[in-house]
Amino acid sequence: MENTEYVHGYSDREALRLNDQADTLDNIIHNDTIFPKDSFVLEASCGVGAQTKIIAAKNPDSNFISVDISEDSLGEARQLIKSLDIKNVEFRQADLYGLPFEDGIFDSVIVCLVLEHLHHPKQALTELNRVLKKGGTMIAIEGDHGSTFFYPDSKSAHSAIDCQVRLQRQNGGNSNIGRELYPLLKSIGLSDILVSPRMVYVDSSRPQLVEGFIKNTFTAMIEGVGDKAVRQGIIDKLTFEKGIKDLYRTAEPDGVFSYTFFKGFGTKK
Amino acid sequence: MENTEYVHGYSDREALRLNDQADTLDNIIHNDTIFPKDSFVLEASCGVGAQTKIIAAKNPDSNFISVDISEDSLGEARQLIKSLDIKNVEFRQADLYGLPFEDGIFDSVIVCLVLEHLHHPKQALTELNRVLKKGGTMIAIEGDHGSTFFYPDSKSAHSAIDCQVRLQRQNGGNSNIGRELYPLLKSIGLSDILVSPRMVYVDSSRPQLVEGFIKNTFTAMIEGVGDKAVRQGIIDKLTFEKGIKDLYRTAEPDGVFSYTFFKGFGTKK
Repeated sequence: MENTEYVHGYSDREALRLNDQADTLDNIIHNDTIFPKDSFVLEASCGVGAQTKIIAAKNPDSNFISVDISEDSLGEARQLIKSLDIKNVEFRQADLYGLPFEDGIFDSVIVCLVLEHLHHPKQALTELNRVLKKGGTMIAIEGDHGSTFFYPDSKSAHSAIDCQVRLQRQNGGNSNIGRELYPLLKSIGLSDILVSPRMVYVDSSRPQLVEGFIKNTFTAMIEGVGDKAVRQGIIDKLTFEKGIKDLYRTAEPDGVFSYTFFKGFGTKK
Repeated sequence: MENTEYVHGYSDREALRLNDQADTLDNIIHNDTIFPKDSFVLEASCGVGAQTKIIAAKNPDSNFISVDISEDSLGEARQLIKSLDIKNVEFRQADLYGLPFEDGIFDSVIVCLVLEHLHHPKQALTELNRVLKKGGTMIAIEGDHGSTFFYPDSKSAHSAIDCQVRLQRQNGGNSNIGRELYPLLKSIGLSDILVSPRMVYVDSSRPQLVEGFIKNTFTAMIEGVGDKAVRQGIIDKLTFEKGIKDLYRTAEPDGVFSYTFFKGFGTKK
């Protein structure tokens, strides 16, 4: 092993592994959520603060306004951020379609795992763009359930995932919105758009993601819609249960699972 | 933009774009196909030399033996390599399931876009492992048609892709083998296995891949199986034609296309 460019040795492979794939979902989507010092950033719909705690802690020299429509969620988010002793976040109740801010006051706007739930994502992005300053950066991060594939493959597992997609669509949302980030950011007139896919590839050489992503994040989420999907006749109980079993099967030592998030950046003209 | 870690400026975004995604498929799958100086490498089934010309040119200080079962293909490969004035490749007719080499003579073995065509990929890998020296590196690269997704989404386009998958299966192959690389490399007893996904994500900000990958590689390949698929009754002509039209549609300015190759590395114990 004379050549350091050679990726065939164990230590080089480790470097490639780290480069390819962080160990946790937070690292995969937020490794580069870094704002310049003293940025004034709007986080649009923060929910209970799951992303807020990561991005605020990663950017101690920036100040965040995190908004959500739900006072209940904001209450939980406030408690979480306080418990972590994070001091650079101010929470405020607000409607994404009509923000209580003047034009062009934020250096950056970040919207993370939110657009998938909206009836009118373009309208929300247009409103977010309004409060962004000229030359400011918009960041949008979304998953895409249609990007999911795995080994062993399973029709029942795909049917179970499709329940989530259909229920989200019934609610006016879009579980496959990740792939649409590029046209969405383009449609509101941003420049220098870059969409960076963040594939969460998991096999048993990545045990933290086997537990943290396949089992506790993705499959648990799909499992959560089972009762509703069966009740609505979208799927029969046995097929759903087999689908969930088959998703857990991909977490076995010879299994493989892949899901892709998309992170889009754009600049306000 | 005071902070150089900040990926929000144009030049930083360019760096991320380059890091994420090379402009050509060759770069995406072969950027790190670098062998140590003086390596003796077996390329298993070289076909007409499409990969040979890339890996041999990238490794001028290594020597390659490239084998294929077909004398016709080898003839074309020889001509191609000669026309490019590449001098570090020797071609030889050989059967992957019974190689004409002694045990443990190669420093590395590379098998690229081959396993998808085989009836018995594990058996072929076992034979390749036999001729690899202890501590030597095996590299396997495969695509996965089931990883394909795009915007706008289209059932007809997925049906057209599925024709290729079904015809490949009829021939004893597996178009979705990329996701199986990890269990396959594990099953032959390699150590330090790393599977690195190589997503080819394409939107109109990557014009070279729009032309080179969406249109001229992927859709052209699917288009090529149309007559056979229609003749065999796998699909009706109108659906197939709509599917192809919809695949070309993803190459428009607001379209998005994604396909994933997998590159696996392992060490012989």
